[in-house]
Amino acid sequence: MKLLYEGKAKRLFETERPDELLMEFKDDATAFNGEKKEQLENKGRVNKKLSLLLYNLLEKEGIKTHFIRDVDEINMIVKRVEIILVEVVTRNVVAGSLAKRTGLKEGHVLTEPIVETYYKDDSLGDPLINSDHIRVLKLASEDEVNELKRQSLTINKDLTAFFTSIGIQLVDFKLEFGRVYPDFKEVILADEISPDTCRFWDIETGEKMDKDRFRRDLGDVIESYEQVLTRVEDAVLH
Amino acid sequence: MKLLYEGKAKRLFETERPDELLMEFKDDATAFNGEKKEQLENKGRVNKKLSLLLYNLLEKEGIKTHFIRDVDEINMIVKRVEIILVEVVTRNVVAGSLAKRTGLKEGHVLTEPIVETYYKDDSLGDPLINSDHIRVLKLASEDEVNELKRQSLTINKDLTAFFTSIGIQLVDFKLEFGRVYPDFKEVILADEISPDTCRFWDIETGEKMDKDRFRRDLGDVIESYEQVLTRVEDAVLH
Repeated sequence: MKLLYEGKAKRLFETERPDELLMEFKDDATAFNGEKKEQLENKGRVNKKLSLLLYNLLEKEGIKTHFIRDVDEINMIVKRVEIILVEVVTRNVVAGSLAKRTGLKEGHVLTEPIVETYYKDDSLGDPLINSDHIRVLKLASEDEVNELKRQSLTINKDLTAFFTSIGIQLVDFKLEFGRVYPDFKEVILADEISPDTCRFWDIETGEKMDKDRFRRDLGDVIESYEQVLTRVEDAVLH
Repeated sequence: MKLLYEGKAKRLFETERPDELLMEFKDDATAFNGEKKEQLENKGRVNKKLSLLLYNLLEKEGIKTHFIRDVDEINMIVKRVEIILVEVVTRNVVAGSLAKRTGLKEGHVLTEPIVETYYKDDSLGDPLINSDHIRVLKLASEDEVNELKRQSLTINKDLTAFFTSIGIQLVDFKLEFGRVYPDFKEVILADEISPDTCRFWDIETGEKMDKDRFRRDLGDVIESYEQVLTRVEDAVLH
């Protein structure tokens, strides 16, 4: 199969069908725009399974995703989309760059979510951008930007309710969207939803269960990813 | 007179009237959030005069400013306002942080202006923020933010037309606004308009006539500020 794209955590391959791609979840862990790099055994498997379960959950709530069908432990078939180069970050609690940007303390609970847009460009370090930058860079139309934000807030409601029910605080998360092949008009959720792209805190203990364990060398990275997966599986399957 | 506030380039003093303040323009030049610092003889005088002339020009176009009356070479009387901690940057040409953020080349002319909002907080390095950050930080109401952007775009039209007529390209500029004492409802233009807060390029030669000469050690800083003043004076007085 022809490799179409290799990112930091995933690979996309062409299939016999032009409208379907194979998405492989890698074990590579990276942080600080690729400066820190490691192999985390099982990460691909855990993130694939989590993404799949969360896609299913969202599809039931009427959110369209690029997921088509499962393949094996680290691969799934997804719709071919053209990724929109605007990463949408939705935040319920202050953490990470939001604390640095605003001076608000990590852990401060927001009364309403904050939505941020970032330019998906590694060479620029994925900088924060506003709607004027998006227009000038021609990354998305105004309608698309509104749609991305609207969908992100809906997804936030659905995911927050679900994760609260399994004792996990959904602190923030990054979503990517794509325009569906072949006419590139419809915009759907793409990429992944995992501890690599979300901040999860245990509601009881406050413990971090996400990529911050890797970024900050807190240890037990994959164990905490698996803990998230176990809780999600228990909730979904029982 | 009681010193009310000292910033990097100006000082504000109380007067006998509670609704009027004395604003003094200092010769201090700073860049990179205060890391680079120098005294530039005559800067206060030039910036005061330029601000005054440009306020007058804008007032004629229906823009309300905090300017009340002239005092002497480096002082003017202004309305007492509560400064809104949102700096509004309007850009017509790519330069400075916009080039770094977007990867667009310095000098690239925008077909429509970009408006950016920054959190006026030195300890945080005046970071870019969006309307959600402004809401959470309670820096301004949604109506005020819209008003700041609307006024900035109007001012951009007026200033661009004027500077073009004197052979200067208005690349970008930073504005600050304030809520007028005593009821703090009306929002008017405050701060200054000078080569410290605008990027001016000579249309013929492309030469920088602003604070970038100081930031980048290009020399002839105050001479270029005075060149801007001379052209503005010639246009206004004749």
